[in-house]
Amino acid sequence: MSGNRSSVGIPSVDRAVAELCKLPGIGPRMAQRLVYHLLRRDRSEIESLSRALQDLHARIRHCSICGYFSESDPCHICSSDSRDRHVICVVEQPQDVFAIERTNDFHGVYHILGGALSPIDGIGPEEIRIRSLLERLRGDIREVILATNPTLEGDATALYLQNLIRPIGIRVSRIARGLPTGGDLEFADESTLAAALSLRTEM
Amino acid sequence: MSGNRSSVGIPSVDRAVAELCKLPGIGPRMAQRLVYHLLRRDRSEIESLSRALQDLHARIRHCSICGYFSESDPCHICSSDSRDRHVICVVEQPQDVFAIERTNDFHGVYHILGGALSPIDGIGPEEIRIRSLLERLRGDIREVILATNPTLEGDATALYLQNLIRPIGIRVSRIARGLPTGGDLEFADESTLAAALSLRTEM
Repeated sequence: MSGNRSSVGIPSVDRAVAELCKLPGIGPRMAQRLVYHLLRRDRSEIESLSRALQDLHARIRHCSICGYFSESDPCHICSSDSRDRHVICVVEQPQDVFAIERTNDFHGVYHILGGALSPIDGIGPEEIRIRSLLERLRGDIREVILATNPTLEGDATALYLQNLIRPIGIRVSRIARGLPTGGDLEFADESTLAAALSLRTEM
Repeated sequence: MSGNRSSVGIPSVDRAVAELCKLPGIGPRMAQRLVYHLLRRDRSEIESLSRALQDLHARIRHCSICGYFSESDPCHICSSDSRDRHVICVVEQPQDVFAIERTNDFHGVYHILGGALSPIDGIGPEEIRIRSLLERLRGDIREVILATNPTLEGDATALYLQNLIRPIGIRVSRIARGLPTGGDLEFADESTLAAALSLRTEM
């Protein structure tokens, strides 16, 4: 065993562990567990996993309208007849669409910014997809829902967009703040609790 | 979006998520996060991950002596000149070797049983590598350390092996029980605490 704590002294295992550790949320222990699992499985299982991962890059494009992942252009959401194209939900990242789609509660379309304004990281309005959002607003849009993250950058981005969109005469809304379902007052941070109190709704 | 909560409606993403979800410790959310990460990376990164995983099955064998994973036979531990071949540490699974090697504290060799005795699961002495262990004990062995898990099955297996090995005149030991380093008495289960008390060492 070398000085490297995650090395097990078997080159192909170490290599697989190192590759898996590049993935978010996977540390050396979990990577070893995954490798061990794969070693016990049939070879075809690894091949089918590899093929599925390689297919991602081969097949996935960005939708030219909303910027979401897609195998077709426009994506399945932008081209769906059952979606309301007059309501655009603006999010930072494609995975935010995954999250909202899971609710089964939103029937409009999306616009993916690809990030949030962050001057200290050098991300200004030109670095994210604001220009293409404004172009879409020339169409018949009823409402823009700003669903950027409830963070400093997400809030700043929402404020910036609100100032651009409201003058056009389109309704702009921001996703609500408050306690998460199943959350516990005792453990809520001050900012969340303050928002939950000031945004309280009549019963 | 279909009724399947983890579907995002993009076939190649859904397929990659489904493949990743087959792995232990990876649920739909984490799988989506991994897919999203891979989509942002260079294609070569996925290829290098796939190759590393496929190499596992192509290159890894079981050591014919100890049963550990290896690219060579015997494995790098059994064939190392710096290991004490007179001390055999018996473990249930190959990943237990990963764990013990990480301590850098054991310099003997291993024997992987491939499981533990479990009559209700139909695992008797013939189902695990006990016969090959006994064959190894015909050589010049000074000590056998029983490092099966401190579970019902692991303890039963250790007891079974002790009864076989002690009559041969070889020293048999069992890994110690007690509180884990950094552990907290308050949260220790009764069995661990009872073991820690009865196995206390003089200071």
